[in-house]
Amino acid sequence: MAVRVAVAGASGYAGGEALRLLLAHPETEIGALTGNSNAGQRLGALQPHLLPLAGRVLEETTPEALAGHDVVLLALPHGQSAAVAEQLGPDVLVIDLGADFRLRDPADWERFYGSPHAGTWPYGLPELPGGRAALEGSKRIAVPGCYPTAASLALVPAYTAGLAENEAVIVAASGTSGAGKAPKPHLLGSEVMGSMSPYGVGGVHRHTPEMIQNLSAAAGEPVTVSFTPTLAPMPRGILATCSAKARPGVTAESVRAAYEKAYADEPFVHLLPEGQWPATAAVYGSNAVQIQVAYDPAAHRVVAISAIDNLTKGTAGGAVQSMNIALGLPEELGLSTIGVAP
Amino acid sequence: MAVRVAVAGASGYAGGEALRLLLAHPETEIGALTGNSNAGQRLGALQPHLLPLAGRVLEETTPEALAGHDVVLLALPHGQSAAVAEQLGPDVLVIDLGADFRLRDPADWERFYGSPHAGTWPYGLPELPGGRAALEGSKRIAVPGCYPTAASLALVPAYTAGLAENEAVIVAASGTSGAGKAPKPHLLGSEVMGSMSPYGVGGVHRHTPEMIQNLSAAAGEPVTVSFTPTLAPMPRGILATCSAKARPGVTAESVRAAYEKAYADEPFVHLLPEGQWPATAAVYGSNAVQIQVAYDPAAHRVVAISAIDNLTKGTAGGAVQSMNIALGLPEELGLSTIGVAP
Amino acid sequence: MAVRVAVAGASGYAGGEALRLLLAHPETEIGALTGNSNAGQRLGALQPHLLPLAGRVLEETTPEALAGHDVVLLALPHGQSAAVAEQLGPDVLVIDLGADFRLRDPADWERFYGSPHAGTWPYGLPELPGGRAALEGSKRIAVPGCYPTAASLALVPAYTAGLAENEAVIVAASGTSGAGKAPKPHLLGSEVMGSMSPYGVGGVHRHTPEMIQNLSAAAGEPVTVSFTPTLAPMPRGILATCSAKARPGVTAESVRAAYEKAYADEPFVHLLPEGQWPATAAVYGSNAVQIQVAYDPAAHRVVAISAIDNLTKGTAGGAVQSMNIALGLPEELGLSTIGVAP
Amino acid sequence: MAVRVAVAGASGYAGGEALRLLLAHPETEIGALTGNSNAGQRLGALQPHLLPLAGRVLEETTPEALAGHDVVLLALPHGQSAAVAEQLGPDVLVIDLGADFRLRDPADWERFYGSPHAGTWPYGLPELPGGRAALEGSKRIAVPGCYPTAASLALVPAYTAGLAENEAVIVAASGTSGAGKAPKPHLLGSEVMGSMSPYGVGGVHRHTPEMIQNLSAAAGEPVTVSFTPTLAPMPRGILATCSAKARPGVTAESVRAAYEKAYADEPFVHLLPEGQWPATAAVYGSNAVQIQVAYDPAAHRVVAISAIDNLTKGTAGGAVQSMNIALGLPEELGLSTIGVAP
Repeated sequence: MAVRVAVAGASGYAGGEALRLLLAHPETEIGALTGNSNAGQRLGALQPHLLPLAGRVLEETTPEALAGHDVVLLALPHGQSAAVAEQLGPDVLVIDLGADFRLRDPADWERFYGSPHAGTWPYGLPELPGGRAALEGSKRIAVPGCYPTAASLALVPAYTAGLAENEAVIVAASGTSGAGKAPKPHLLGSEVMGSMSPYGVGGVHRHTPEMIQNLSAAAGEPVTVSFTPTLAPMPRGILATCSAKARPGVTAESVRAAYEKAYADEPFVHLLPEGQWPATAAVYGSNAVQIQVAYDPAAHRVVAISAIDNLTKGTAGGAVQSMNIALGLPEELGLSTIGVAP
Repeated sequence: MAVRVAVAGASGYAGGEALRLLLAHPETEIGALTGNSNAGQRLGALQPHLLPLAGRVLEETTPEALAGHDVVLLALPHGQSAAVAEQLGPDVLVIDLGADFRLRDPADWERFYGSPHAGTWPYGLPELPGGRAALEGSKRIAVPGCYPTAASLALVPAYTAGLAENEAVIVAASGTSGAGKAPKPHLLGSEVMGSMSPYGVGGVHRHTPEMIQNLSAAAGEPVTVSFTPTLAPMPRGILATCSAKARPGVTAESVRAAYEKAYADEPFVHLLPEGQWPATAAVYGSNAVQIQVAYDPAAHRVVAISAIDNLTKGTAGGAVQSMNIALGLPEELGLSTIGVAP
Repeated sequence: MAVRVAVAGASGYAGGEALRLLLAHPETEIGALTGNSNAGQRLGALQPHLLPLAGRVLEETTPEALAGHDVVLLALPHGQSAAVAEQLGPDVLVIDLGADFRLRDPADWERFYGSPHAGTWPYGLPELPGGRAALEGSKRIAVPGCYPTAASLALVPAYTAGLAENEAVIVAASGTSGAGKAPKPHLLGSEVMGSMSPYGVGGVHRHTPEMIQNLSAAAGEPVTVSFTPTLAPMPRGILATCSAKARPGVTAESVRAAYEKAYADEPFVHLLPEGQWPATAAVYGSNAVQIQVAYDPAAHRVVAISAIDNLTKGTAGGAVQSMNIALGLPEELGLSTIGVAP
Repeated sequence: MAVRVAVAGASGYAGGEALRLLLAHPETEIGALTGNSNAGQRLGALQPHLLPLAGRVLEETTPEALAGHDVVLLALPHGQSAAVAEQLGPDVLVIDLGADFRLRDPADWERFYGSPHAGTWPYGLPELPGGRAALEGSKRIAVPGCYPTAASLALVPAYTAGLAENEAVIVAASGTSGAGKAPKPHLLGSEVMGSMSPYGVGGVHRHTPEMIQNLSAAAGEPVTVSFTPTLAPMPRGILATCSAKARPGVTAESVRAAYEKAYADEPFVHLLPEGQWPATAAVYGSNAVQIQVAYDPAAHRVVAISAIDNLTKGTAGGAVQSMNIALGLPEELGLSTIGVAP
């Protein structure tokens, strides 16, 4: 019997990507689709690429609309998930694509979001140490942020293997879909094409504490993170360039070995052969993660670089992967490691 | 038992797209992969987005390599398919993604390609009148050109319904993958980003006689075609803006009705609701065709516009669709109408 | 003594481009800069590329702010220019970059804009027959639309030379800056990158009557225009692919000769050598127009293609060129034919 | 009397940009234009944006062709400048846009380029401490690399002011023109559009020792540099995200003050107002450098970010600026701080 999935926030980029993946998932059936300002509109007008759903009409995001599903995906602006989740029964698998339940430390949440902390849910990054176990059978899942997904997968093996000092520097370039579909002047095509620009510099981006949380857990001690996100002229994709000072005795071989070991059995994370570097185009539309790592002997740093699709592995693909685990389905079901390129 | 498929020319864009689709096809198994200058290289280095095939190594395109398959896809430079096809038995389904067997009139071939005509194979555009019947059980298929696919699907209903005079004007914008993977200065990213430019203007583009062939067949009389291709700053997609003078008595309603009727039962061709226009992004990576049509009463013209992914419906998706028909499989198997957007 | 120029609407793309050009103009001095919703903001925040003006603050668009200038450029939403212009004295040169005063036929205006016609001003396209004479000493100038600039320069020589039948087909691709800076979902970078899409199809785009006006004047009889604009994934540039059936007796030579003659002495319009085709990148940021023309003997059509920068020659550069003529300055002053490429 | 300038390597991107700037320079006259594989071709076919030079034909790069000029700009592949320069007299100002004469330490050259060191010329980055004095009256100038220009201008003030520890981390995104015009598969538009990818990771990029040279000079002690270049989907522009651990006692205020002081009188380097961040689009085609700096108290790092146009300030604009200084002309002559945006 098919798993019945509702998507709250079906008109945005995260919701649209979730639907794209669910349409190809062999065990799910798409139930209610809701939106707020867009309720009453045809999905075909809002998400013209989702042809099989073109005739569906968005409902308001109400408890009634979301009732009667096995899974509810929340693709809502941050701060709105808790109120919706409370109204869903404890037997419904609720997966939050937003930020509300990612952070463990309420003080972090309050400092970066300026509102009371809603709580902490199991974290939907199965590739972290202990990540899968935390999700099995869970009824609540917090999907990681796109940047933390890319950066954590790049650096966690260095920290779990004790290769890196506890000060990480992360510079990541993201496609514009990461900024969402609400129209703002600086996100106009005229502004972003041909331009690279940073934002949230100096430790103020909201994904920073989430990275710190993941890397510190891997290191077993507090790790500081200098994170600079940049906006790149492409619709999708994150390239995260991450580095940290190497601990004494680290060599190119020990670095390579640690990453090979960390990802040997991961279905979605691929350590590239030596000499080949990640490219966001290669993971376009897929749930794959491309990783490469180098040791720079002159700067004495470990440099790890990852490429993901911010909407797939970075958002909706990560959600489906976690859903599969929580429901006891094969983890790879409905997900692809094949990018759409060129 | 799986259909075993070989791909000759697996390092190029058409071959890569064929593999992307075949990897998701439930009834096929990927056999030999061949290339010429790239023989001996890992596919992972040449097509880094095809992760499940990353370890495969390209062979030379020889009869031996291609032997023992149910289907052989030829993604070769034009002029090379005949020699390879001759060496494959009559029971092998040979599908040519190149131009060699598309044209019926040898004089057209010789005028536009400057070499002897190799012959004519059943034409892989099932949506044409009689298109499916020509492919059922066939062992040889000529996949249409990308521009003729887009333009024919846009204008054929106008001609079959007798709505349009026999002089068509077609201006199409293509993503750069249509020009292939051989590096040429004018195809560098530095040159194409931020630039629109025409080429092959004035009736000299090689896809012109193929369009004339399709539209004339639909009209039942010779149709002239003024075709101008343009290169657009995007990797994939064709937007074909096609028009012809309306015959007397044509109205907006009669035009709409003709197109609704033509495509009512087509699984891949979608006439959009009135007021919505095609966008190449909406069909990115999918086999769908978006079509919209208008009647301009002041200019007295029928204007039909289609959007396809040049590599999918315009090349490899059309090949798989035709393969499915030829093999008696469900036509939609392994093909999607869901684009990767935004 | 410097010509003192005010720009009303300095926060938008047209106003910004006007300022970019005026900053490099040796005979002008930039006076008042006004905006409405942006009044009170620093120009450096709104137009960060105009470094020399970064500290200037926008005023409200009032008669007082615009008083005391030799030239006032109006870069306002359509329908707003008349009210502002009325308050400026008859000795002030008022140049409207908007649509309000372009059309001669009030019925055209009312049909396409749905409001009363404000009037007709001398038309700022010096390259039209009689175009310069109409501008010399004028105190009011209506700058042409970007598409009509591109299309008229492409086709007028064919009509003035009697080469073409009176039914023109124009398909043009424009960069997104042509749609302005007001944020709308379909203009987001995420939506436009990687996508070509049409809009205003079927004779409903507001630039259609302006093209008809120009081409009919050149032909000496009414010309119908089938115009399809498309949005291309680039910030700037228009590529206009224009064609019309050739009159009997037309040859490739007669077409070439007509265009060579038409543009032999034009400083900004360059007929390219045979075999070379226009590219929008080549005119990026410049006031140049690249044109090429072909005769297609099979389709019996004249195909003329032009490339312009929609913001420069298509808007603000055309305005400065016309201003120079009106003021008796050298026409090329402050304008360049050198593109920024690649 | 005009300064007569020859450009060797006029068909490439650096040479083309030099010509674009020289055409707008009031004191120069463009003399010989040379190329090697392109000798004999019209510049109009090779650089279609340089309309005023369209009729010029490239000569071979010979001593005879380059004789009789006041200035010779060398835009040649690395390793070729020394042989050409030797044949030019000591009174000719020779400006090398290539790498040959940038490094002071022959061992650095040999390690990164694998050939004997040709020598060291005065370094064309006037904004460095003592930078202008080194260029005044000089007859030989080595133009800095594009990445070192961006990174040095971002970090030198932190080092001269003693704010930063001697380990710098630099991640920079460059437009594709930085990779030159030689066609290579990975530089095709189809490959680069929609993709971010790193290259030369782990300290192996040839611009690394040049950055170390500049930062160490500023710091007065050896600085290590972890440099990761990435290729961004845009034709032009570099965004350099640079950081280093802050020294004890550093505050946001002391950082800001140091940068304000460093660039208060620089005509091309603009420290943006607080809260505004650099964007490559804002400096497109201009010689301006946009810089912003932040202090991250949690990570205890100084983060400085610069945006330049890699072809203008990063190559040909830097060359013209240095030429002006060497010749005793006003430094800003022929150079603009106005970007072409959007």
